[in-house]
Amino acid sequence: MGNLHIYDDPSWSRKYNELDRQVHGLEGAPEWNALRTMLPDIQGANILDLGCGCGWVCRWAREKGAAKVLGIDLSESMLAKAAEFPDDPAITYARRNMEEDLQLPAAEFDVEFSSLALHYLVNLPGLFDQVYRSLKPGGVFVFDVIHPIRLATENPSWAEGVHRNEWPVDAYLVEGQRSLKWLGGNVQLQHRTIAGYLMLLIGAGFMLAAIEEWGADENQSKAFPYWIESGHCPVFVHFKVVKPKS
Amino acid sequence: MGNLHIYDDPSWSRKYNELDRQVHGLEGAPEWNALRTMLPDIQGANILDLGCGCGWVCRWAREKGAAKVLGIDLSESMLAKAAEFPDDPAITYARRNMEEDLQLPAAEFDVEFSSLALHYLVNLPGLFDQVYRSLKPGGVFVFDVIHPIRLATENPSWAEGVHRNEWPVDAYLVEGQRSLKWLGGNVQLQHRTIAGYLMLLIGAGFMLAAIEEWGADENQSKAFPYWIESGHCPVFVHFKVVKPKS
Repeated sequence: MGNLHIYDDPSWSRKYNELDRQVHGLEGAPEWNALRTMLPDIQGANILDLGCGCGWVCRWAREKGAAKVLGIDLSESMLAKAAEFPDDPAITYARRNMEEDLQLPAAEFDVEFSSLALHYLVNLPGLFDQVYRSLKPGGVFVFDVIHPIRLATENPSWAEGVHRNEWPVDAYLVEGQRSLKWLGGNVQLQHRTIAGYLMLLIGAGFMLAAIEEWGADENQSKAFPYWIESGHCPVFVHFKVVKPKS
Repeated sequence: MGNLHIYDDPSWSRKYNELDRQVHGLEGAPEWNALRTMLPDIQGANILDLGCGCGWVCRWAREKGAAKVLGIDLSESMLAKAAEFPDDPAITYARRNMEEDLQLPAAEFDVEFSSLALHYLVNLPGLFDQVYRSLKPGGVFVFDVIHPIRLATENPSWAEGVHRNEWPVDAYLVEGQRSLKWLGGNVQLQHRTIAGYLMLLIGAGFMLAAIEEWGADENQSKAFPYWIESGHCPVFVHFKVVKPKS
């Protein structure tokens, strides 16, 4: 997960911090509206955000009544940015490598969440096992990743591609490392098929509750010019899975 | 489902009957090997095949010890071809329109199966409800359809396209009617996203047990030249779902 350090590369992260989702937070992330409808009522809940960045979702969860929130990220600069927001004793931020030293307590969380972080992980099966173990029975895990249609080709180019309605799909079934050209950098990600994600989740013991292949609709494309014309070809895929009660 | 009558169009079905899967049966269908591994042990089981064609899977199920098999299809010529095989009193074939007059008994079948038929249906939610109702609790439903990546564009051309490794994806999120150029005809199909299929299944009460996005691997491409170079871009998607016991 060394690739996550790109968020700590000053010249790259300067561009990243100019994105709507960094300037405006969740209001600047057009997929958030769809993603949050997958979350259960979090009043009084204990929440874990895996790859919390500067903590937009952690703070949102507290506004919605979460009792306790733990935000995990590998990026020092992101966590430093999180620390600039007014202190909330019910939110804890911790620097952790999700593939190495996560060490979550068993049956601790009601809801676990992750946005656009898990496509960085090579050892995703290990992470899914940790999520399963650390959720209470009946607990919910909601996450999204870049849609595999967008990552499949050998040299995906996000900055150009996201504006295109037609997207060439090649090497979709060849899972593994991709080097994505984005914001002038080469971001290292793991390409997995939708079936690949689902079979890992089922293998970890989860039950699929919902899935959405997301692209910006016409109105969103108007409000977020960055996403224009992405509506016909999905950009992200959202998963909601449940740890069965018995 | 009037479009299914293309199987009863003599000039089109002459070409269809020249395909490996019609000449050689299941041995001529490169995806069958993967699909059958999704099926449970069918010894003594009561089986329904939705869109059975000339009955390859019905006869295979009897070879594997199925107690009783019902094969349903809309095509008269396919059912006539099924009747040319040696009679087996444990196999019943019936002409039915899956969208109109299926009328399946409740909790009757152990396993229901469908291969490359359900992408014809407009009223797929209605069919899934019937499958759910007619399965015994704990029963299994295995089916495959053309992968939505292959059907997404406004004018998909199967005959050309299946040979291509790179496939242009457009209008993926726009579900609905597609006219697929195949074997010199225009076959009317319904494009649904993977999430679309899954949410209909979950909505009907099913639990996802397995999913596979299938393309021919290198060896299969050698054995089945028709499928050459399809390996990197999935051709079909296979689903296995279960009706929960309680």
